[in-house]
Amino acid sequence: MSTTRSIIKVAQFGLGPIGKSAARLVAARDDLRLVGGIDINPSLTGKSLAEICGLQGDAGHVYRNFAQLADDVRPDVILHTAGSRAADSINQCRPMLEAGVAIVSSCEELLFPWHRAPEAAAEADGICQRTGGRILGTGVNPGFVLDLLPVCLTGVCREVTAIRGQRVVNASLRRQPLQKKIGSGMDPGDFRALWREGKAGHAGFQESLLLIAHAMGWDIAEVEENLEPVVAEQRIKTEHFDVLPGQTRGLHQIVQGRATTGQTIHLDLKMYLDAPDQHDFIQIEGDPSVSCRVENGVAGDIATVAALVNCIPRLLAARPGVRLMTDIPLSGVTKVPARKEIAKHPPHGFLNDVLPPIYD
Amino acid sequence: MSTTRSIIKVAQFGLGPIGKSAARLVAARDDLRLVGGIDINPSLTGKSLAEICGLQGDAGHVYRNFAQLADDVRPDVILHTAGSRAADSINQCRPMLEAGVAIVSSCEELLFPWHRAPEAAAEADGICQRTGGRILGTGVNPGFVLDLLPVCLTGVCREVTAIRGQRVVNASLRRQPLQKKIGSGMDPGDFRALWREGKAGHAGFQESLLLIAHAMGWDIAEVEENLEPVVAEQRIKTEHFDVLPGQTRGLHQIVQGRATTGQTIHLDLKMYLDAPDQHDFIQIEGDPSVSCRVENGVAGDIATVAALVNCIPRLLAARPGVRLMTDIPLSGVTKVPARKEIAKHPPHGFLNDVLPPIYD
Repeated sequence: MSTTRSIIKVAQFGLGPIGKSAARLVAARDDLRLVGGIDINPSLTGKSLAEICGLQGDAGHVYRNFAQLADDVRPDVILHTAGSRAADSINQCRPMLEAGVAIVSSCEELLFPWHRAPEAAAEADGICQRTGGRILGTGVNPGFVLDLLPVCLTGVCREVTAIRGQRVVNASLRRQPLQKKIGSGMDPGDFRALWREGKAGHAGFQESLLLIAHAMGWDIAEVEENLEPVVAEQRIKTEHFDVLPGQTRGLHQIVQGRATTGQTIHLDLKMYLDAPDQHDFIQIEGDPSVSCRVENGVAGDIATVAALVNCIPRLLAARPGVRLMTDIPLSGVTKVPARKEIAKHPPHGFLNDVLPPIYD
Repeated sequence: MSTTRSIIKVAQFGLGPIGKSAARLVAARDDLRLVGGIDINPSLTGKSLAEICGLQGDAGHVYRNFAQLADDVRPDVILHTAGSRAADSINQCRPMLEAGVAIVSSCEELLFPWHRAPEAAAEADGICQRTGGRILGTGVNPGFVLDLLPVCLTGVCREVTAIRGQRVVNASLRRQPLQKKIGSGMDPGDFRALWREGKAGHAGFQESLLLIAHAMGWDIAEVEENLEPVVAEQRIKTEHFDVLPGQTRGLHQIVQGRATTGQTIHLDLKMYLDAPDQHDFIQIEGDPSVSCRVENGVAGDIATVAALVNCIPRLLAARPGVRLMTDIPLSGVTKVPARKEIAKHPPHGFLNDVLPPIYD
């Protein structure tokens, strides 16, 4: 990171595995400073955040709520990793927005809060316009692979008729909560029922589709979402689960929609234990068509934490409000370089002799 | 495109093949209106732009310069396709920036004008701050494949140590000026000499590297650029050139740099007649590493024109100034949706029975 930027003060809200990992990444970056934590668990209140996260040095304390933290330290940014529901997350974040703080959240539904919590989103946006606050939902999925990356690729198309995304994740090496949310070890019927109740499966999938549609200027009349359990044919043992034949080893989830103007979006996610051929694949049909494959896929939990933390300077570079991944800049480095920062470069072609020969 | 956005008035500056193609795309989009053209060729002055571009309907006239066009129509945006040099392009664009107009340019060096024309860029930025004008350089390469796409992919990495990009273009089916700039039919020594003079080869390559470095916050002390002619082993005939064995059939151009903090960027471009295996490949080394392959590569001239036109709403959504591709939003649709625009969606999982069976 450039040393010319000022240090951004960050507090961590939610001290589960992802939250602690995010706090460690904040502490490791020299453009950010970790100034404290917030968690509703009373047994953590008052403890050293550095100790809880296994960090050297001082990172402030854990507070019960934002008001108590804000009395001691004035954070510029809150990293929020404490829920999947847009309305609940906005509720938790309201005092921070009232204080004009910027919030980067892993809450899946906040990727496009206008879908499931339009009133809460409108209210939050109103607060931000008044206070200068900002709130953004992001991550790897939702937040990158099946929404931001496809939108990025359409940038070179004069027309787009269909957007398809496919992601295959081998869940065997992922954390316990992820193996649980994909139904590992459950009866397939029970898992399907749990998903219908909104209590299992991949969250924020409709939001990925609607973020794409929004960025493309497409009106989607109806979104279809479906999940089928992937069933084990033989026993699978992971660190966390022992799955017997006939039990669920993961999910195949699809979301699709058609614009009133005819364009279609189809997103396909397979996430199961021992899934072969991990990859991400994006196909833009249009003029020109563009297809792109990420070999092995974008890795899970490390990348999720990175996606959150990388958005901190990007969000601060955007206007106040309820922000979307498609309306913040790709980089937080948005200031034009000062004259002195420009390195002097040798003239065009000065090193013409150093390259190895070309074999075509 | 959504019909809720207001129509943006666009004039085309430069009526070569790319300019005319861009004008046609503007005319085809219902969020944009083509209001006139500018070209220094006096034989075009006063002619119907629609006639020159082969369009139906009215698209205004061709003017000799911006002042004359601005007397008749007040464009919101100028599409500028009239040069490769940053200093010259900024000179041409100064009157438009003084009028507070936004400019999207195909000028390769404008991708990062702080490299070769820092004084002119600073002056242009100053004008924009005063008038509300904006200027942006973009395209497919530079502008997307070897700069924006790699920066996008780093969004999920907690650390990046190296960025590599590779692009292979089969030039046989491309327009005559492109076949010419890659040296088709030239003596390899003459072509190499011409490139050293800055008169041939791929323009804006150092700018791609420096845009990446800027977005990553890396200080690059030195940039190395090299070109080797690719020599024909047998005769190659295209629509425009007849290349004999021993003559140049294209180029292999490399640009590389190392940050003062150790990270490296290496971009490799092969663009020659009958090149096999067209593709783009991006490799981010870091934690996690991410590699991505665009099969067949992002197609040339259609995509270039699309990249320019797609940036019009995106640039207008950004702050005034000399803008970079990494500091404008990915989509021009940045307003939060009005309540009535939100479609009502069925509950999670409502269409559980419509999907075909899953075969894993």
